[in-house]
Amino acid sequence: MELGMIGLGRMGSNMTRRLIRGGHHVYVNDVNLAASDALAECGAHVMIDPADMCARLPSPRVIWMMLPVGRIDLVLSEILPYLDPGDIIVDGGNAFYQDTQARARQCDVRGVHYLDVGVSGGIWGLERGYCLMIGGDPVAAKRLEPVFMALAPSTPPEAAGAERGFLFCGQSGSGHFVKMVHNGIEYGMMAALAEGFNLLEHADFASHFPPQPGVDPDHYSYTLPLADIAELWRHGSVISSWLLDLASMSLLLDPALEQFSPQVADSGEGRWTVRAAVDSGVPCPVLTAALFGRYSSRGQDDFANRLLSALRYQFGGHMNSAPATSRA
Amino acid sequence: MELGMIGLGRMGSNMTRRLIRGGHHVYVNDVNLAASDALAECGAHVMIDPADMCARLPSPRVIWMMLPVGRIDLVLSEILPYLDPGDIIVDGGNAFYQDTQARARQCDVRGVHYLDVGVSGGIWGLERGYCLMIGGDPVAAKRLEPVFMALAPSTPPEAAGAERGFLFCGQSGSGHFVKMVHNGIEYGMMAALAEGFNLLEHADFASHFPPQPGVDPDHYSYTLPLADIAELWRHGSVISSWLLDLASMSLLLDPALEQFSPQVADSGEGRWTVRAAVDSGVPCPVLTAALFGRYSSRGQDDFANRLLSALRYQFGGHMNSAPATSRA
Amino acid sequence: MELGMIGLGRMGSNMTRRLIRGGHHVYVNDVNLAASDALAECGAHVMIDPADMCARLPSPRVIWMMLPVGRIDLVLSEILPYLDPGDIIVDGGNAFYQDTQARARQCDVRGVHYLDVGVSGGIWGLERGYCLMIGGDPVAAKRLEPVFMALAPSTPPEAAGAERGFLFCGQSGSGHFVKMVHNGIEYGMMAALAEGFNLLEHADFASHFPPQPGVDPDHYSYTLPLADIAELWRHGSVISSWLLDLASMSLLLDPALEQFSPQVADSGEGRWTVRAAVDSGVPCPVLTAALFGRYSSRGQDDFANRLLSALRYQFGGHMNSAPATSRA
Amino acid sequence: MELGMIGLGRMGSNMTRRLIRGGHHVYVNDVNLAASDALAECGAHVMIDPADMCARLPSPRVIWMMLPVGRIDLVLSEILPYLDPGDIIVDGGNAFYQDTQARARQCDVRGVHYLDVGVSGGIWGLERGYCLMIGGDPVAAKRLEPVFMALAPSTPPEAAGAERGFLFCGQSGSGHFVKMVHNGIEYGMMAALAEGFNLLEHADFASHFPPQPGVDPDHYSYTLPLADIAELWRHGSVISSWLLDLASMSLLLDPALEQFSPQVADSGEGRWTVRAAVDSGVPCPVLTAALFGRYSSRGQDDFANRLLSALRYQFGGHMNSAPATSRA
Repeated sequence: MELGMIGLGRMGSNMTRRLIRGGHHVYVNDVNLAASDALAECGAHVMIDPADMCARLPSPRVIWMMLPVGRIDLVLSEILPYLDPGDIIVDGGNAFYQDTQARARQCDVRGVHYLDVGVSGGIWGLERGYCLMIGGDPVAAKRLEPVFMALAPSTPPEAAGAERGFLFCGQSGSGHFVKMVHNGIEYGMMAALAEGFNLLEHADFASHFPPQPGVDPDHYSYTLPLADIAELWRHGSVISSWLLDLASMSLLLDPALEQFSPQVADSGEGRWTVRAAVDSGVPCPVLTAALFGRYSSRGQDDFANRLLSALRYQFGGHMNSAPATSRA
Repeated sequence: MELGMIGLGRMGSNMTRRLIRGGHHVYVNDVNLAASDALAECGAHVMIDPADMCARLPSPRVIWMMLPVGRIDLVLSEILPYLDPGDIIVDGGNAFYQDTQARARQCDVRGVHYLDVGVSGGIWGLERGYCLMIGGDPVAAKRLEPVFMALAPSTPPEAAGAERGFLFCGQSGSGHFVKMVHNGIEYGMMAALAEGFNLLEHADFASHFPPQPGVDPDHYSYTLPLADIAELWRHGSVISSWLLDLASMSLLLDPALEQFSPQVADSGEGRWTVRAAVDSGVPCPVLTAALFGRYSSRGQDDFANRLLSALRYQFGGHMNSAPATSRA
Repeated sequence: MELGMIGLGRMGSNMTRRLIRGGHHVYVNDVNLAASDALAECGAHVMIDPADMCARLPSPRVIWMMLPVGRIDLVLSEILPYLDPGDIIVDGGNAFYQDTQARARQCDVRGVHYLDVGVSGGIWGLERGYCLMIGGDPVAAKRLEPVFMALAPSTPPEAAGAERGFLFCGQSGSGHFVKMVHNGIEYGMMAALAEGFNLLEHADFASHFPPQPGVDPDHYSYTLPLADIAELWRHGSVISSWLLDLASMSLLLDPALEQFSPQVADSGEGRWTVRAAVDSGVPCPVLTAALFGRYSSRGQDDFANRLLSALRYQFGGHMNSAPATSRA
Repeated sequence: MELGMIGLGRMGSNMTRRLIRGGHHVYVNDVNLAASDALAECGAHVMIDPADMCARLPSPRVIWMMLPVGRIDLVLSEILPYLDPGDIIVDGGNAFYQDTQARARQCDVRGVHYLDVGVSGGIWGLERGYCLMIGGDPVAAKRLEPVFMALAPSTPPEAAGAERGFLFCGQSGSGHFVKMVHNGIEYGMMAALAEGFNLLEHADFASHFPPQPGVDPDHYSYTLPLADIAELWRHGSVISSWLLDLASMSLLLDPALEQFSPQVADSGEGRWTVRAAVDSGVPCPVLTAALFGRYSSRGQDDFANRLLSALRYQFGGHMNSAPATSRA
């Protein structure tokens, strides 16, 4: 199949490679020319700009956008004028599904199909395959099955339905909605692992802190082999998972994790999941704790904490400050 | 190797079967004779009582206990008098690691080794193998390697260290400590999945509830194929995991999960994990939210909620009560 | 001062009474005629419809709306055509501040000032006075000071600034924003009290439940006088507060709180607070836990909990279901 | 009444002053002689050591200990040999109620009454009075009513029961148990306030951060007068409370709270509350979030956060590190 790919970051580039390996002809475009050139070596056709791409693609056109959220509307406005009814745009990025609904309506006016495809798999997807959650017009989605098949994990030929690694989830936005919840769960699972390993890391805390009432120091004097435990749990435990595989690799390479920042970024999907929870009346304390933990990691709780110290000072005369010290 | 197994519940029975398949001679005992008889058919030697077992086992003896926490001390008091210095008791149950430390000291006085082995794998362990976390005397643990090898997943012959599926974690209690944290993580991961699927389940809530400010009904009118999504995520997604495999099976068999209770039990390990977090000064909001969610599922928040309704009535005249109705 | 009041529920009616007591002339309107009639007895002028009210009020007009969020836009569309530049509309309800911004822009086009005034105090405000948080045009707000003065608590004549019980917070929407955060804090404080009293209520749990590892039954066998404790804490404790006063009254009247529902409603402000937290990157785990606790109290966690039970069944063979029982 | 006071920190000294003002004769002792001397000027009798105090007090003796938890057992062992059956020791500190039970049993063997009295009020108690929660032998407690009366807030003469500001809560340890829960609630209320003010503080975040999907910058461009808002809420709002009074004072003195540390200490009571919640099966998500927030404020989540960054790097190639930067 011939299709365009706009946006050649880590995700877009690897997906293009996997598509080419799957026998597809991919026309690529990115503001970063080096990214295009690298793919040209793999057989991609480099397009100077989106308009050029629209001109070269056979009708009905298929253009896959793999863009940061901030660039989607810009690219959309560049290509829409060149598209005809029946053409298909795929938004494979991590867009907010409510924005996706609006964009789909905008395309619908011109008869252009706007499919939203949530893509999971990260940088490992090139080898492992990508998990695809698809929303929008079902007929348009059906037409792209060869593309989805190439991107999804190589499943046994007899695989059917969701087992093939891609799924039509429903009307416009549903693909991004499902991807959003997927990432929400990802936040929760990551935090569960992180808290657990943090507990293991502190299992010897009694040797470093003064005794406290009701706590026997003998109960907290274990020096545990964290990297080995992570590896162990990959074999037959209830929590074996791909994220645990990655944790094991991380701890193997850098047992103290010193090269990694204690300030954790968040990318939007986690936030949107909590908004959906609040709107829907669905309690999601775990997913929310995971999100807020990342906010706090970046010092966003500092003012709140200063007020707590101030209150403690006011009622108890506790002054654990003066001057404020940086977090040890 | 010849060893005794006391406690033939789901875990103990399956482990015995796996040990026998691995070429070991297992002497079994349980208060439930039917459980013993079932294992006799597989080649286990049924012992009438623990004393009998101690008499029959070659020296140095190895006795594995696979008991509910409430029975451990009883069985220990029955067998200790028959044991000699150098014998090994293995506690493979979900005991509180602080109690394990005390039991190990009690055995140590008599020269008997008390190994704690956290066992993960559940009812699937028979085929899949068990993940073993071991604490206690390292020499005694080394002696039991053939036993651990038979229980652990069948890993490639060249596997080394933690890859073999069993690991010596450290001094007495550390095996149960690591298992405790494992289960704490399990609680968190399970809750992350459960919250996520609950969100998907309510993605059409706008069709059932009156509109609310700031919420566009079009954003919440998806009817999503939950079982398919669970299956999909097993293929290449970041959250692929054994628990997701189980969720997929559950939703396939009973999409509305109606046969399962909304009241969720908790087994002790989750509680102990939070205690350890509190004692250690390690924030574990996700693991704790998972535990408290189970408490609430059993109505343990009812009095608190009644007080909230009372306060709302007091300051706002809101009386959503009179009489109290059961949870819809 | 002459002003109109549209919306005569618990809040609007009591505020009208307080305004009349303060020497103001109030023209009232409500779809419920009985509410108007009751106020006529106190000296209010009953208006048949909003148009009538606009005709009778001297220019520049002041109309205070005290409406449920679902009715604000309707009433606004009814009165706007009758208003002139310089007139002032006050929205004193619990509107979503983002909607308030839009409404203010809509009025601004016609030269009409739209002030948002968050009002706290509940049904006690009639005697205790109302706490007022004001956003919008500062000149218009200044013009209404006599009205705010009558509504706010009777503070000493020399009181200045915020001590007077009303405050100009900033541009349009800021009054409702501050009220929203106030209610968010209210949710958190209420939940803190509710959790604490729930703990006291269960301080004798060891007499009702089987023993568990690491827990000495003697530590949990207190039967505590909850109503007395609530009263006690009102006198000199760090947590003395108006909400505690109300808790004390509630427990005095109905110590077991049996007449109050364990299902707790939420009114929007709590939700919007969490949305603001998520948008702002400000971690609010306490306020969010309070909101989600209310969701769970209404069974909104049921599907999640059924999945947890299903997972436990899948990996451990635990079937605490079959059939599902209602929450005890 | 004649009584001894051992431990003359902020709490013990002020309580002694209030007792003397109430007409009591107080014999004081502290390892810090300056503290004793300061009280001598107010009329206290300085005792060189606890033994001396025991010798001077009339029988049956009353000795009030106001000690840090780490010193209680030491002082107890010093005075117990000098006490006679019928004597009363009061433990007014923030001891762990489970330890209190053990100490009471130890005293009981010698016929000495050990009363536990939770004391709330902080440094303001001298003027405002102390709120007292009393556990132990009811007859002994009755005997001390004149002492409690002097310490408690000056309530109207006709006040009865809990209104007097002191309350007999039940058997040994119950006073400290109730104080523990009081402090747990205090943690929750403080955090609710802190989170709310943090939200207000960030209400202009859209001016400082890049735009994000689904967020209109106009919704987050308020610069709010925090100190005024705190003052305002003290007048007639639902959240008016003593802690809000203190917050108002803090923000008035130092609007940016720069002199206060963002690292918040925790004192034990909050931890014990969560332990009790876990043991009792009572969900306390708010109180626990408040506690964990303090842990995180001290960097106790750093290792967990590093693992999150590592996982993000592993699956997404996100490297927001290299080298790790300190929290801004």
